[in-house]
Amino acid sequence: MAEKSLPIAVDAMGGDYAPEQIIEGARLALEFDIPVVLFGTEEALAGVVDLETVFVSQVIGMDEDPGQAVRRKKDSSLVRAAEYVRDGHASAMISAGNTGATMASALLRMGRLKGVSRPAIATPIPTLEGDHPVILLDSGANAECQAEWLLQFAEMGAVYARDRFNVQKPKIGLLSIGEEAGKGNSLVKESFEILNSGNWEARSQAEFIGNVEGRDLMSGVADVVVTDGFTGNVALKTLEGTAKAIVSALLSAFESSEEARKGSELLAPSLLPLYQKLDPDSVGGAVLLGVKGIAMVSHGSSSANAILNAIKTANELFQDNHVENLQSVLLP
Amino acid sequence: MAEKSLPIAVDAMGGDYAPEQIIEGARLALEFDIPVVLFGTEEALAGVVDLETVFVSQVIGMDEDPGQAVRRKKDSSLVRAAEYVRDGHASAMISAGNTGATMASALLRMGRLKGVSRPAIATPIPTLEGDHPVILLDSGANAECQAEWLLQFAEMGAVYARDRFNVQKPKIGLLSIGEEAGKGNSLVKESFEILNSGNWEARSQAEFIGNVEGRDLMSGVADVVVTDGFTGNVALKTLEGTAKAIVSALLSAFESSEEARKGSELLAPSLLPLYQKLDPDSVGGAVLLGVKGIAMVSHGSSSANAILNAIKTANELFQDNHVENLQSVLLP
Repeated sequence: MAEKSLPIAVDAMGGDYAPEQIIEGARLALEFDIPVVLFGTEEALAGVVDLETVFVSQVIGMDEDPGQAVRRKKDSSLVRAAEYVRDGHASAMISAGNTGATMASALLRMGRLKGVSRPAIATPIPTLEGDHPVILLDSGANAECQAEWLLQFAEMGAVYARDRFNVQKPKIGLLSIGEEAGKGNSLVKESFEILNSGNWEARSQAEFIGNVEGRDLMSGVADVVVTDGFTGNVALKTLEGTAKAIVSALLSAFESSEEARKGSELLAPSLLPLYQKLDPDSVGGAVLLGVKGIAMVSHGSSSANAILNAIKTANELFQDNHVENLQSVLLP
Repeated sequence: MAEKSLPIAVDAMGGDYAPEQIIEGARLALEFDIPVVLFGTEEALAGVVDLETVFVSQVIGMDEDPGQAVRRKKDSSLVRAAEYVRDGHASAMISAGNTGATMASALLRMGRLKGVSRPAIATPIPTLEGDHPVILLDSGANAECQAEWLLQFAEMGAVYARDRFNVQKPKIGLLSIGEEAGKGNSLVKESFEILNSGNWEARSQAEFIGNVEGRDLMSGVADVVVTDGFTGNVALKTLEGTAKAIVSALLSAFESSEEARKGSELLAPSLLPLYQKLDPDSVGGAVLLGVKGIAMVSHGSSSANAILNAIKTANELFQDNHVENLQSVLLP
């Protein structure tokens, strides 16, 4: 099948190392024959002559209120990038900036897929044992959820696991506080009943494996874990914070004496694969599932390489007709 | 002040290494002049002549439904130990067994403190930087909570932080998905308003520092983190699971080659403090706050040393009049 050719819209203004690392990441993508269009101010993109660019006059900051910023800053890189996807000029949008504003731009400009109650943020969680990350959704778009929405999260997560990580029959877990069916709060109990009814599993080519616990997020027992956006965000940040605290304590220990330094040098080759698995750059960004387009958020600390990975992933999802696949499961 | 002298009621039947390690832990406590009374079957306690024992005919298993088990097994070690505390024969109860059943025994046999809507499980979280663990509550007793209960969790957590970790003016954080006041689900928003009203802070000698995020659980920015029992349990298990996954991946890496083995030997002295901080045995168990007595749960994998630590902690709380301190803040 011939590759479809549309550029990826990349926000050059978002991220700790913007615009330099973002531009550099876009350049790297050219070597893989993936076209990119950069959105940024004229100043930020001055000197970029080898890439397609769209100049904008506004930038949405990291701490701005997403909804308000998107409504007010109509000529911002995020809003303009989302419109580019909506209008069919780009296949996907990517930003390492304000997550909420990226999602709000996508939602407000691209609109929802038919039949979707609420789009959800799907975040890949690194597993140290499995061969692909676990997908956690909703990891923060909807602080308050209804049980029916969690069913849609399961459906969308299944399609995403298949298109992104090639999992043919994704195992879906429901995040709770005990594995038995009756465990959890009222939302979880109600969601369990709906997910366990089984009608949706054949359509989504998925398998509901019941409740899973926080400790299962990294274990790979499920391919997709569904939860409300409040619980999902707490779990995600707890996981990231724990990993970061331990890794940083380890790195201090490595430097704490001459012996330790020698030891860490000997260990380095064995620790590298572990470090790479935990590295946000290699796990890749989150996507907003349920909108009419591909919207991807890369980590704030994204390097050029992380941006390249995000571009490659977004392009793969586009080539795989991910948005159409989502729609066909949601509106059979 | 002379020490009050009452034995600690220890469940000899609960835990992965029961009864041997439990009995051994109780013996270790004798060296610290802390009296202990062991609850177990005659068979399990055969040969124990140097310690006070109470024979029971029933045992509550790890997987039994807590409420049902406590109602049915009236002569179990857990129920009898809770009655011993209720009747003034023991100062505290400790189990490394079924957490839910330990809590249910305490709640149903000791009863609630006056003014307490719902007792909550307070779990110490190891911080790698701070000098004492962060207290997370509710970490699992109440899957569904009201905002007023979270205020009581804050009040009880403050007293606990003071009595257990000697924090004079505990900083209380509310677990949410963003630091700004408006972030979170409806329970969090409502709880924020109540906690931020300030009337309770003087009485509890505490300071409300606003919302905190999952990543702050190990950072020590707050001394006490309050949340509903569903979110708290998910966060706790996510944190434990992440730490365990990383530590176990590290240990595998240490064994992965001859060089790595040598490196890990050189590193061992520097890694030991980190390992000890993360070790559940050293952090200690969870307590049920809000009942008329001290009820402590030690980890299922408790060694004799972990049981000793739990006994010492329970005894300190008893000597500090912890239950009376809780009551005086809750009913001023």
